[in-house]
Amino acid sequence: MSGWLVIAGLGPGDPDLMTPEVSRALAEATDVVGYIPYVARVAERPGLRLHASDNRVELDRSRHALEMAAEGRRVVVVSSGDPGVFAMAAAVFEAVEAGPANWRVLDIRVAPGITAMLAAAARAGAPLGHDFCAINLSDNLKPWALIEKRLRLAVEADFAMAFYNPRSKSRPEGFAKTLDILKEACGDNRPVIFARAVSTPEEEIRVVPLTDTRPEMADMRTMVIVGASNTRIITRDGAPIVYTPRSMEA
Amino acid sequence: MSGWLVIAGLGPGDPDLMTPEVSRALAEATDVVGYIPYVARVAERPGLRLHASDNRVELDRSRHALEMAAEGRRVVVVSSGDPGVFAMAAAVFEAVEAGPANWRVLDIRVAPGITAMLAAAARAGAPLGHDFCAINLSDNLKPWALIEKRLRLAVEADFAMAFYNPRSKSRPEGFAKTLDILKEACGDNRPVIFARAVSTPEEEIRVVPLTDTRPEMADMRTMVIVGASNTRIITRDGAPIVYTPRSMEA
Repeated sequence: MSGWLVIAGLGPGDPDLMTPEVSRALAEATDVVGYIPYVARVAERPGLRLHASDNRVELDRSRHALEMAAEGRRVVVVSSGDPGVFAMAAAVFEAVEAGPANWRVLDIRVAPGITAMLAAAARAGAPLGHDFCAINLSDNLKPWALIEKRLRLAVEADFAMAFYNPRSKSRPEGFAKTLDILKEACGDNRPVIFARAVSTPEEEIRVVPLTDTRPEMADMRTMVIVGASNTRIITRDGAPIVYTPRSMEA
Repeated sequence: MSGWLVIAGLGPGDPDLMTPEVSRALAEATDVVGYIPYVARVAERPGLRLHASDNRVELDRSRHALEMAAEGRRVVVVSSGDPGVFAMAAAVFEAVEAGPANWRVLDIRVAPGITAMLAAAARAGAPLGHDFCAINLSDNLKPWALIEKRLRLAVEADFAMAFYNPRSKSRPEGFAKTLDILKEACGDNRPVIFARAVSTPEEEIRVVPLTDTRPEMADMRTMVIVGASNTRIITRDGAPIVYTPRSMEA
């Protein structure tokens, strides 16, 4: 009996954005482990056990998945988007590092997925067409001072910026502070993209000049992308196109 | 006759990493446009015209694709990886912005793909598990001074770093300078991942401590990922696992 563990990315929502590699892992699995809304995206079938758990129990969930793989089961840990970007892959490897020696010899693979920033960028045009950074705005696991430092340095570096987890009900003030910092530090009116629930029926894309942005434009289902200083908008009938050119003057 | 243009990402190489959305666009296309090695990844079939062109003619290629879509053809512009990350999407939108008014009313969509840094990160573990940046090291279209500035600020922000186009035969010196800057600025011996030709038969993954890195470890088919200050290595029989924990102290 040879178990394995695949840490898989389901993509942003639309099944057409999930890779065949991930589909096959799910088809061969005996057990699927993950956060409730992501496990709900996996079709039930005979012989497949679904283990859905709540948010903020990532390490418990990881240990459970590793235990089952060590027992010979074929386990898929699911994340939305890509598992390596602010998702389950790091949590599983934290559990491996702190866990028993036999977990290190397990067959563990990461199956990448379309992460939210790529799906959101595709809907808006090509705002990440040049150098960019990705920042998790949640301060659950890091101090706010570090987030603020990174924001200011990212503006100075003139990266386009993709923000994950911009705003939750329990800590709405971080995103308000983020917008205040950007308005002060950018010194221009570059476009900001609010991409909510991309590739799902609830998808909503808004392009807002930085000075008109307000904190309540984002929630936890929103990906926020802030352009670089040279990011451009092409206006037309219908949605505008936002893109960052490939070339950059000194 | 209603033409369209899809700017599609083929993923890093393995067809199992190409999304169903992209597969369907290719199945419905009348014309495929792109750089020679990427067009070579598209299966020939009756009724499909393949238009392969050389590197560095991205704007000409974009205009050709837009002209064909305006004539009512169903055109797919292919990139490796994701089209929005250092690839064809920005080039097409540059052509749209500078082009005739009728190009703005075309049905243009971007179909995202698994970009090289996500595929490389998945193979190595989860080195992009926390805040990170992506930098194109080619100085074809931007001055070297800007690259150096971004490198130094990225180190100061303590981002993990993903480098695209690290080194070409025509300008090998940029990557040597990059490594010199990192060795000086990082002040530690964090892991560097050299991921060559990920997901192809020529795939090769090396994990090298920063102080042991040498410029010739990369070529244009290599994705380079540099850890953050807290990136960890799990040693074991076989390949080590490199991951960046989700939490970060002040």
